[in-house]
Amino acid sequence: MKNRAAYMTGVNKMEIREIEVPVPKEKQVLVKLEYVGICGSDVHYLEHGKIGDFVVNGDFILGHECAGNVEAVGAGVENLKVGDRVALEPGITCGQCEFCKSGRYNLCPDVEFLATPPYHGCLMNYIAFPENMAFKLPESISTKEGALVEPLAVGMHAAKQGDVKLGDSVVILGSGTIGLVTLLACKAFGATDITVVDVIPKRLEYAKKLGATTVLNATEVDVLAEIDKLTNKKGVDIVIETAGSAQTIAQTPYLIKNGGRIVLVGMAPQDIIEYNIAKVLSKEAEIKSVFRYRNIYPQAINAIAQGIIDISGIITHEFDFEDVAKAFDFVINHKQDVVKAVIKIG
Amino acid sequence: MKNRAAYMTGVNKMEIREIEVPVPKEKQVLVKLEYVGICGSDVHYLEHGKIGDFVVNGDFILGHECAGNVEAVGAGVENLKVGDRVALEPGITCGQCEFCKSGRYNLCPDVEFLATPPYHGCLMNYIAFPENMAFKLPESISTKEGALVEPLAVGMHAAKQGDVKLGDSVVILGSGTIGLVTLLACKAFGATDITVVDVIPKRLEYAKKLGATTVLNATEVDVLAEIDKLTNKKGVDIVIETAGSAQTIAQTPYLIKNGGRIVLVGMAPQDIIEYNIAKVLSKEAEIKSVFRYRNIYPQAINAIAQGIIDISGIITHEFDFEDVAKAFDFVINHKQDVVKAVIKIG
Amino acid sequence: MKNRAAYMTGVNKMEIREIEVPVPKEKQVLVKLEYVGICGSDVHYLEHGKIGDFVVNGDFILGHECAGNVEAVGAGVENLKVGDRVALEPGITCGQCEFCKSGRYNLCPDVEFLATPPYHGCLMNYIAFPENMAFKLPESISTKEGALVEPLAVGMHAAKQGDVKLGDSVVILGSGTIGLVTLLACKAFGATDITVVDVIPKRLEYAKKLGATTVLNATEVDVLAEIDKLTNKKGVDIVIETAGSAQTIAQTPYLIKNGGRIVLVGMAPQDIIEYNIAKVLSKEAEIKSVFRYRNIYPQAINAIAQGIIDISGIITHEFDFEDVAKAFDFVINHKQDVVKAVIKIG
Amino acid sequence: MKNRAAYMTGVNKMEIREIEVPVPKEKQVLVKLEYVGICGSDVHYLEHGKIGDFVVNGDFILGHECAGNVEAVGAGVENLKVGDRVALEPGITCGQCEFCKSGRYNLCPDVEFLATPPYHGCLMNYIAFPENMAFKLPESISTKEGALVEPLAVGMHAAKQGDVKLGDSVVILGSGTIGLVTLLACKAFGATDITVVDVIPKRLEYAKKLGATTVLNATEVDVLAEIDKLTNKKGVDIVIETAGSAQTIAQTPYLIKNGGRIVLVGMAPQDIIEYNIAKVLSKEAEIKSVFRYRNIYPQAINAIAQGIIDISGIITHEFDFEDVAKAFDFVINHKQDVVKAVIKIG
Repeated sequence: MKNRAAYMTGVNKMEIREIEVPVPKEKQVLVKLEYVGICGSDVHYLEHGKIGDFVVNGDFILGHECAGNVEAVGAGVENLKVGDRVALEPGITCGQCEFCKSGRYNLCPDVEFLATPPYHGCLMNYIAFPENMAFKLPESISTKEGALVEPLAVGMHAAKQGDVKLGDSVVILGSGTIGLVTLLACKAFGATDITVVDVIPKRLEYAKKLGATTVLNATEVDVLAEIDKLTNKKGVDIVIETAGSAQTIAQTPYLIKNGGRIVLVGMAPQDIIEYNIAKVLSKEAEIKSVFRYRNIYPQAINAIAQGIIDISGIITHEFDFEDVAKAFDFVINHKQDVVKAVIKIG
Repeated sequence: MKNRAAYMTGVNKMEIREIEVPVPKEKQVLVKLEYVGICGSDVHYLEHGKIGDFVVNGDFILGHECAGNVEAVGAGVENLKVGDRVALEPGITCGQCEFCKSGRYNLCPDVEFLATPPYHGCLMNYIAFPENMAFKLPESISTKEGALVEPLAVGMHAAKQGDVKLGDSVVILGSGTIGLVTLLACKAFGATDITVVDVIPKRLEYAKKLGATTVLNATEVDVLAEIDKLTNKKGVDIVIETAGSAQTIAQTPYLIKNGGRIVLVGMAPQDIIEYNIAKVLSKEAEIKSVFRYRNIYPQAINAIAQGIIDISGIITHEFDFEDVAKAFDFVINHKQDVVKAVIKIG
Repeated sequence: MKNRAAYMTGVNKMEIREIEVPVPKEKQVLVKLEYVGICGSDVHYLEHGKIGDFVVNGDFILGHECAGNVEAVGAGVENLKVGDRVALEPGITCGQCEFCKSGRYNLCPDVEFLATPPYHGCLMNYIAFPENMAFKLPESISTKEGALVEPLAVGMHAAKQGDVKLGDSVVILGSGTIGLVTLLACKAFGATDITVVDVIPKRLEYAKKLGATTVLNATEVDVLAEIDKLTNKKGVDIVIETAGSAQTIAQTPYLIKNGGRIVLVGMAPQDIIEYNIAKVLSKEAEIKSVFRYRNIYPQAINAIAQGIIDISGIITHEFDFEDVAKAFDFVINHKQDVVKAVIKIG
Repeated sequence: MKNRAAYMTGVNKMEIREIEVPVPKEKQVLVKLEYVGICGSDVHYLEHGKIGDFVVNGDFILGHECAGNVEAVGAGVENLKVGDRVALEPGITCGQCEFCKSGRYNLCPDVEFLATPPYHGCLMNYIAFPENMAFKLPESISTKEGALVEPLAVGMHAAKQGDVKLGDSVVILGSGTIGLVTLLACKAFGATDITVVDVIPKRLEYAKKLGATTVLNATEVDVLAEIDKLTNKKGVDIVIETAGSAQTIAQTPYLIKNGGRIVLVGMAPQDIIEYNIAKVLSKEAEIKSVFRYRNIYPQAINAIAQGIIDISGIITHEFDFEDVAKAFDFVINHKQDVVKAVIKIG
């Protein structure tokens, strides 16, 4: 049993090193990872050494989308056993602060989130992890799909924040990975009219393939006019912003229906956005926002297992663990082509 | 243009009579009905002359599940035009009482509900109806399906009262028409584990066909023990009672998970049920109930139009308007075989 | 019985004219008005001839905060009788659109709102009004207080949109009339820590007198630093913006706690505000907005009747009907001193 | 520093014994208790040796309503320091199960609740307790009041389950300790019309004194008829059952308004109650239940500190720790007179 981890050793530098195989502590399981997805945040850390206030100091292991097999269990583990296949929810929370106690553990100030400095990620063979954040995968779900429960959870949290329900109409701004998982989530929650907007034709093709009822290329059409036309000037029930640009964020109050819900997911490069507050007020619209997710994994796994969500549809590239540096390099240089790249660890 | 209506003229007596073609008043549309579904309540009125405090006095027109074509519009009609196909929501509410104003118009004390004495039903060729309760059917929905939005709405309201969501587990007690539309609704709302319980094999076959993940015949297995086994003794997220028997109502607290939701839909013959309140308390379970529905038609129509719900699957029998008396007679004598019979008016 | 109304006949011009005494139609009551409050919107129409897209055309009656005595009842009136004292909710809604049916009648596109062009207001002796928008006042409430249920309803809707609950901490930005009624509402909903911010000392005195636990003069202290200090850098549960300035709106994301709720009530002169969306996202804050109110009158009247809210505390000036032009003139010239002026019609 | 605990050594047998002073572990504080309230459950264990499935085995320390001073802090304690006065929330939960993670920690299957076998209670001088369940009392609250946050929390949870809001009407069945704290909670949540029902005049006097707007003695009046009269046959918004008798539980569907909420708190001697389910259905009423409480302490402490709730008003008797056996004896023999007895430990 040998453990190796992919370290970021500097901006745009990665190398694989041998590390100790961890021993699972009380209520922990030892997981042999099979797949780790590459997230935009991993790429951002590698390219810039930081995201906002989170700065990489010294060598750092990336990766937080993962699944694998339980190889050993620590004391007191009750619900998992050796051989179980699991997806790991990467945020370990305190369980005792006011946010945890009230069910909003994603806001726990003491969360230890994989691949968020100072906490290492999971691009490695073996990880010890709390049993309660390791979710058993039913037979019908592969560990490759299991690794993608994480990004899906963001899209599902966005749809839940927007209270997307059967029969609703939705506009999703942005058709990158988060836009697409939000699309899958909105469909699963029953939205019957989903318009996806982007500026890259390839991404809009993905959206169409994954179930968007309408796609709009913002370089070709006037998005506001199109949505007015589609909704008879009423606007849609829910607008979800995943593009993270000042322009798309600023569009949201124009697209929403009276009494509708805007969900902000994407972080723009700038903090301050010129935003039409008057329109929000006159429509009595509501704005929700998304910071990671909470209580989504069991629901997501059930939905994938029942075929309601086909998460494998977002995988566009796969690399071997040996090629992890090459994989990141490829992703960085083909941002428009890659929706989701996964690393096969096994 | 000739109008004829099917009158109940006494217990188990029906005849078709010619009546005036109504003139649509302000904000009303004149609808030429194409299909009317036969509901259990219609049958009950015909067999017993009353349901609870609602007593049929004199000749009475049955039927409240219907759809047809707009033939004329009254003054002030804005959203419908001649030729539109519409499903009618059969409860005309005041719009001004505290229940209407707070969005719970199904509790309006002044509601005029089709085929609920003293208000006649819609087993006729032409009806004048408020525009705001006539919902336009998109091309992909037939008026035969449109007539069944009404029973579906009951199932959808049950699922909504139970807050059935993506990934939830549900037990539905009873696999009659209401049990089956509840099943369709639970699936559409994303439940991934739906067990349907009944005592009639044929009905359980329907449930299986319409998407139940498990069906249980209560004459063959111990339902409580089976659900314990299926849920690892935890119980299910939501239990929906549609059978309307003292026995099944009494089972609900045993089947529900801690913190779960019981939804009561079926009316039992007796008012008073021996109910395990202690179990409700120790589980901190919640009990919701269903009286008709509210704000469901647009959602239901969208779901049918998108193929999320195939309501046509519940139709087992169709009769011509001329044979309406025979149709009722057939339904009364084949209760176990008929899920939904419709009358073709056209 | 003589009816007279105060007409705005041009910018800053008012005169009293005799008009017909209306006859109450079906389900209407004839109300002899006793008090009418002067709202900022009335003043704005008088000074500028319009508010946004609502333009005064021709002679126009102002006033929408009112209460009086029932003098006659139309056909079909069931719950009111001659001699009852009532407060009028000034928005007459259709009761049948999707917003009305779902309990959000304040968003009804066909609302007829008093003193909102093209609908006249209530600065007159006699008005005929729908029974269902005339709320009976218990003996313990005067018609002077009854006239102020209207502005109070805005504050209560703001507190409800923010889900202000027992034990919550709140910052209210702005201590004008709406800020003060919001303060009264937050107290009534149980907030235990209420900080009111303004720049006018006199208004902050009112806030202190009406129950603010802390008042901050933004010309003297750094509001963000003060709230940081008061909350140990956590921010408050709810921030309610009533000042309607770009600067105060922009402050809201800085003042709010992680997972907290921002409520926007005040309309700024400019539509577009430079707003820190990044902070909203990183806190997963929620933004609600307020457009008038819904389903508040009965609750407000109960709260005043039980002494939970003392709405009379906001009245600073009273004028006779004869002096209505003078009254408006005074209010326009003493904006900082006047919280609420009322016209005694009787 | 000497520690002594009051042991129940058999049915109706108590004695004080010396025990070790515990050492606070990581994230624990050592609390010198000042007051412990006597709860009905403590009395029930002493009289019967068990409550339902919870059986006292061997010597057992009673008491779970308590407050005191922090005397020492364990490693990692961040928010409390020596000298702080604290109220202890007696249920230590796992923080990691699905119930804890979703904010419903009162349903945690692994909870360790004081004085619930096999976990000892707190009738002792010194207890070591997790910091996160020890809530700091502001200066304005005594430790005697602090000990009563626990029963108050039950009443507040009942009011929250019933969504009691400003202006609501409530019937509380039962005027024992839980009925009275529910009354205090309903008042604090803004109910303006609170009727309390009991059969013991003295208890109804307490209810009147603590703020009930109406009290009904069920031995003297027909409760259903009275509530019909008071509500014009509409029923009340919320009915909260705290008496725990088959008869009062059975009354709840008759007292509730259409669309209203019934809250079950009291456990009846028998599990099965004859309950009018038909009435629940025809009113589309909702039934909520109460198992302990969650996320209430901070809210309760704020409300007491601000004078919104005067919890000291329920204390009728006080005993010294030396007299603890006598105290229980007294309570057992004067059940109708004692609302709340507290033991002064200091």
